[in-house]
Amino acid sequence: MTQAALIEQLKTLVEPGKVLTDAASLEAYGKDWTKHFAPAPSAIVFPKSIEQVQAIVRWANQHQVALVPSGGRTGLSAAAVAANGEVVVSFDYMNQILELNEFDRTARCQAGVVTKQLQLAAEEKGLYYPVDFASSGSSQVGGNIGTNAGGIKVIRYGMTRNWVAGMKVVTGAGEILELNKDLIKNATGYDLRQLFIGAEGTLGFVVEATMRLERTPKNLTAMVLGTADFDAVMPVLHAFQSKLDLTAFEFFSDKALAKVLGRGDVPAPFETECPFYALLEFEAISEDIANEALAIFEHCVEQGWVLDGVMSQSEQQLHNLWKLREYISETISHWTPYKNDISVTVSKVPAFLKDIDAIVEANYPDFEVVWFGHIGDGNLHLNILKPDAMDKDEFFAKCATVNKWVFETVERYNGSISAEHGVGMTKRDYLGYSRSPAEIACMKAVKAVFDPNGIMNPGKIFAV
Amino acid sequence: MTQAALIEQLKTLVEPGKVLTDAASLEAYGKDWTKHFAPAPSAIVFPKSIEQVQAIVRWANQHQVALVPSGGRTGLSAAAVAANGEVVVSFDYMNQILELNEFDRTARCQAGVVTKQLQLAAEEKGLYYPVDFASSGSSQVGGNIGTNAGGIKVIRYGMTRNWVAGMKVVTGAGEILELNKDLIKNATGYDLRQLFIGAEGTLGFVVEATMRLERTPKNLTAMVLGTADFDAVMPVLHAFQSKLDLTAFEFFSDKALAKVLGRGDVPAPFETECPFYALLEFEAISEDIANEALAIFEHCVEQGWVLDGVMSQSEQQLHNLWKLREYISETISHWTPYKNDISVTVSKVPAFLKDIDAIVEANYPDFEVVWFGHIGDGNLHLNILKPDAMDKDEFFAKCATVNKWVFETVERYNGSISAEHGVGMTKRDYLGYSRSPAEIACMKAVKAVFDPNGIMNPGKIFAV
Repeated sequence: MTQAALIEQLKTLVEPGKVLTDAASLEAYGKDWTKHFAPAPSAIVFPKSIEQVQAIVRWANQHQVALVPSGGRTGLSAAAVAANGEVVVSFDYMNQILELNEFDRTARCQAGVVTKQLQLAAEEKGLYYPVDFASSGSSQVGGNIGTNAGGIKVIRYGMTRNWVAGMKVVTGAGEILELNKDLIKNATGYDLRQLFIGAEGTLGFVVEATMRLERTPKNLTAMVLGTADFDAVMPVLHAFQSKLDLTAFEFFSDKALAKVLGRGDVPAPFETECPFYALLEFEAISEDIANEALAIFEHCVEQGWVLDGVMSQSEQQLHNLWKLREYISETISHWTPYKNDISVTVSKVPAFLKDIDAIVEANYPDFEVVWFGHIGDGNLHLNILKPDAMDKDEFFAKCATVNKWVFETVERYNGSISAEHGVGMTKRDYLGYSRSPAEIACMKAVKAVFDPNGIMNPGKIFAV
Repeated sequence: MTQAALIEQLKTLVEPGKVLTDAASLEAYGKDWTKHFAPAPSAIVFPKSIEQVQAIVRWANQHQVALVPSGGRTGLSAAAVAANGEVVVSFDYMNQILELNEFDRTARCQAGVVTKQLQLAAEEKGLYYPVDFASSGSSQVGGNIGTNAGGIKVIRYGMTRNWVAGMKVVTGAGEILELNKDLIKNATGYDLRQLFIGAEGTLGFVVEATMRLERTPKNLTAMVLGTADFDAVMPVLHAFQSKLDLTAFEFFSDKALAKVLGRGDVPAPFETECPFYALLEFEAISEDIANEALAIFEHCVEQGWVLDGVMSQSEQQLHNLWKLREYISETISHWTPYKNDISVTVSKVPAFLKDIDAIVEANYPDFEVVWFGHIGDGNLHLNILKPDAMDKDEFFAKCATVNKWVFETVERYNGSISAEHGVGMTKRDYLGYSRSPAEIACMKAVKAVFDPNGIMNPGKIFAV
């Protein structure tokens, strides 16, 4: 069958007008937030029901057409990029919250529900969806599940995985599976739901998911603490974590802070200049809790770990302190940074960070390294800024060498080459630094179970 | 090779004296807490290292010998029973906590570490392992993972699944896999760790696991509330859950309470007689929290949901209130109860419970039904007591009919035929009430990936 005939056939599976092949749509729906791959899908299809998704998958199996799942396309690993003539399956028209149950504290969502939409719907009922990150305004529930999205509250609430009560999927073989039936306890064999979480659409499509909701946090209060060196960050984390339930524990370096303060629209937390800063957050449910936090702070100062600090006294101050951390990524984008999202276990962070610093310093002394991240869960965002005088191509060529050193160091520390951004195409060739050959063989065999013809997002996680 | 020659060969794989074939050992290690299957293993082997486990698995593959994993053998679904000449692999000699990291808040455990041993080791460092249940004194970490053990604090802390930072497994194919490397964030493809959790040893052996630890709860405080009817339990749960982080929300019926009070060693919570009772627990971190709990209690009384209640004022009172719930199982064992461990989503519990009651009442009016369970997570323990005058065989024959009605009702409510006790052999033939044929086919294909020769705990979860 010709390509044109195939697309005509595809059109019969969905509602009129729900297959697009114009250049602008192919360009827009063929890529995510990564920029390394030129989008080149053959069509974009917009199903409106689970049955239509199933029909598309069956059609794709019949004609060996590769499918790429498409949510908000905010990913940073090119898992939602269609660069090889694939058909993109967009969930933009499956965007309804089908049910919100206050007693079960769950929301049953179609895959295309936007994260923010879920957060607001929860809020309306006095509940809370706690997985939050920069792209919540456009990322979709299906994509969050496909990448097991994390973000800034993982230390308290965990990853997206923890919030999926159940889901419906259409496997690569075209079967509809209802996984876990939204139960809290269900000991009836393998929890297949878990396989689809973080699978980046390589096993099938998540078409519906019931997400758990939580009690709304009360009187969130932040502290920013300046530490004497990076080593001091760890006992500070330990001291707070032993007594309080932290909702966040982030860190950033003096260089990151300098860039954000350079914008001129965010006040400095305090005058003392420190090499590293920790931002922590907790629920000051009662005055006792706030006093306990202050007592821990004083203990940290006495121990010489903390040089200065501030605690938010209002919602405005809370937001201002958070800006110091949240504005980093956007602010440094001006310097075309080399970025890497990696993790090690929390206790190994100081040694790991020093090793990476030393490697970059020794080889590229003119590179400025900006660190920030979710230190409470061992997740570091490494950013290296392009020196103004250096040509882009030269910079990226040198960064490719840095990449190798970073991943070798990650492997030595038994860490992860992708903490929360996934593998997609950008880290596919480095997977062996974090997963053994035996594990990768098992993963490929598991993929073959659910996607026997290899039509689901081929080339993502593994090479085709 | 003869059976005797095989066993001789097995002996060369482990330390001297670490293969037992005497009648008493075969009897003891061939069964778990279920009593329906006669133990009949051919040998018990006690490896002392991961490499020895691997050697046993390779030997088993070579000679097509079935292996049964053996932890504390406290299971209630016959998943650890060896009734068909299998070789039992016991982890009794792999019982060390290899490392306890206070900064990471993790304990790296060999599979045979006893739950209580882990709890005490955590306690020594001012930390807490929160998955707790009646058999914690003899259940082992490997078995907890194999069954994804739950228990009484699931509403706050979740199942064992939530506490496994990483693990080492020996697959049924004899490969050693190190899964997740104890990371909090790791987005590098399928989380194979999740497959082994709750797999009941059918994919391979969990040989080592790093378990997460938590801050110790502060000033745990319990309330027992008597409700007007079962429907009232749900708004009570909702009212408390909206404001407080509950660490438990259990329930029991008047019949269950009567049996426990009949022992004579536990004081009644209060004088008012009620058809249902809820036991809830929370951390009274400050006086504000205790006052908030009392305010919610008063609201529940005003609404007519709660008829009477009591709040613990001391650790002794806390323990006494818990005895009302914890003694039920042991107390009713005198009546040779038919037991079933099932779950539905929380909001469906009242209607589900009434349906089951009506079915039993209509068909067997002389049966006494005793309900209790973890209502906060939708997990109900159904117990039917044998009428004193009825013969055991007649009772169990009638209960087989009840079983079918219960599972049909579970299916109608989209629930689980095994909430937390697993499938093993006792629920294997009923799996289809909770998992679809397509799901079961996927599960079998996944098993074939990790256990291609079917040597791992055959006949458990699925028929051979």
